[in-house]
Amino acid sequence: MRRTIDWDGGPGDPAIATVDQCALPHEHRVLRLRTVDELIDAIKRLAIRGAPALGAAGALGVALSAYRHPADEAAVRDEAARLAAARPTAVNLGWGVERALKRLPEGPDAVLAEALAVLEEDERANRKASRRAADLILQLCPRRPLRLLTHCNTGRLATVAWGTALGVVWHLAADGQLEYVLADETRPLLQGARLTAWELAEAGIPYRVLVDSAAPAALAQGLVDAVVVGADRIAANGDVANKIGTYAVALAAARHRVPFVVVAPESTLDLSIPDGSRITIEERPVEEVTRFAGQPVTPPGAGAFNPAFDVTPADLVTAIVTEDRVFHGPGAGQ
Amino acid sequence: MRRTIDWDGGPGDPAIATVDQCALPHEHRVLRLRTVDELIDAIKRLAIRGAPALGAAGALGVALSAYRHPADEAAVRDEAARLAAARPTAVNLGWGVERALKRLPEGPDAVLAEALAVLEEDERANRKASRRAADLILQLCPRRPLRLLTHCNTGRLATVAWGTALGVVWHLAADGQLEYVLADETRPLLQGARLTAWELAEAGIPYRVLVDSAAPAALAQGLVDAVVVGADRIAANGDVANKIGTYAVALAAARHRVPFVVVAPESTLDLSIPDGSRITIEERPVEEVTRFAGQPVTPPGAGAFNPAFDVTPADLVTAIVTEDRVFHGPGAGQ
Repeated sequence: MRRTIDWDGGPGDPAIATVDQCALPHEHRVLRLRTVDELIDAIKRLAIRGAPALGAAGALGVALSAYRHPADEAAVRDEAARLAAARPTAVNLGWGVERALKRLPEGPDAVLAEALAVLEEDERANRKASRRAADLILQLCPRRPLRLLTHCNTGRLATVAWGTALGVVWHLAADGQLEYVLADETRPLLQGARLTAWELAEAGIPYRVLVDSAAPAALAQGLVDAVVVGADRIAANGDVANKIGTYAVALAAARHRVPFVVVAPESTLDLSIPDGSRITIEERPVEEVTRFAGQPVTPPGAGAFNPAFDVTPADLVTAIVTEDRVFHGPGAGQ
Repeated sequence: MRRTIDWDGGPGDPAIATVDQCALPHEHRVLRLRTVDELIDAIKRLAIRGAPALGAAGALGVALSAYRHPADEAAVRDEAARLAAARPTAVNLGWGVERALKRLPEGPDAVLAEALAVLEEDERANRKASRRAADLILQLCPRRPLRLLTHCNTGRLATVAWGTALGVVWHLAADGQLEYVLADETRPLLQGARLTAWELAEAGIPYRVLVDSAAPAALAQGLVDAVVVGADRIAANGDVANKIGTYAVALAAARHRVPFVVVAPESTLDLSIPDGSRITIEERPVEEVTRFAGQPVTPPGAGAFNPAFDVTPADLVTAIVTEDRVFHGPGAGQ
């Protein structure tokens, strides 16, 4: 399976196939989802995750629903609404649902065609945005080869294919301009240690994992030329909602005048939101923090503060790069 | 056992008793250490940890050695040197060793008396420093009751008794001025989730655990009135080496103008070091990051960047409070 998420339906058997991101890095398992409820469950437990992959899931989910309920538009719209609400922060999920839903009056085949167009465009947009970001970083950073730090997972597993911020890594590696990647482990669910490390290992790229809180030390020690991250929602003023922990890295990058570059498709921009304070931040279950692999790590009854995302203010962002544009922020000393 | 670490020797049976911090929060187990090698092992695997507790361990270890080798000063000095080198960053370990060693010419009983004086002074210094820090925070923060955030463990488990930064929590709780504590989990070894949470639960103080990278989000959301942390070594210019992750919290506290207060005994000051760039930072085993509870979390062969400490520059520190003094830094908007 070349794509992380794809249509996998035969006649009379509509389905979505997706890499189970909960099973990595130990097992590369493909899930076959036959109902929107199964899809919502996979999204909620993060078997499918990453803003662009969620956009694809949203569009494919509407196609799945349209085939399951070919004569019942109300049922499809109901499932689509539940799907769009499965996770609140990433704008792409609702965007993908909306895009596919527009074709619903034309029937299931038209909805599927639209969903497949979303998938096609995703890879194209990612390749283009990450090429542009790689070129920008080559301009901004004189050192060769380059040493990058990233947070969470923004590779092909977070998208349909290729990746956003991790796409920069693939381009620079192909250019022979990359020394290594430092991958934040990304607590609580370890998308960096599990997924980014897996993608980098597969690609044969030198990397080391670090606890999230060591990223400022790495920046202070001069081990990083540029930081690249993705985004889940970008407000009109350039504030960036992304995986919890992004903000801390941005604060340290600004302090050490290391470029902090956000790579995301245009579908991540939400111009309806003036600034980051209006972005809904998902709070996830306490057990993600208080337990590990089924074992408690805290005393019984411990509570947790567990926001899945934080907001990096625009003034800490050197550039936001999409498939169409580069937005320069006030920047971190650039 | 009232103290975290104490002398536990009878006639002809010299030993040190200490709470095994690797077993918490699931089990409160006391280790009895009969040789300096056992003590060094306990320090290296962090069964004994926390800068002030390491100072006590250093002094008690010299007493242990002096009773084991009563007629062989060279053997004691050799063991003392190995003990002092067991962990490089916390200045207190070498300080405790040196203090006890000065009495070696007077024989084992004099060495033990000096070590026991170190233990006495530790609790007294902690109570005094944390009272002074609590009063400072009451002055700096108008809101009542207060909401504190802390990193790592600085309670009685990190000291002989009472605690340093967590001592502020005990004082404010006794004053009826404390609403809750947010405890950073403190990756990779989870001293916050395991030890601080355990101490707070034992004391009946409301708390929540958070992943380290969520601390800036908590500060941004206005959930924190003051940050209190300990220190492992403080340079002459006020730069503070402390558990990895402290620097990120300090950056966020400064951004949000939340007081960032360091509480530590005078023995943590190292005036021989002009600034933080000269502090040796211990790098710990890769497996602390790549494995969790014996299970791998990364792909096979993954490397890690695993510094045990970072350095918070003096300009981000609102105040350093010891049993004798308050040093005001340029501060975070105070």
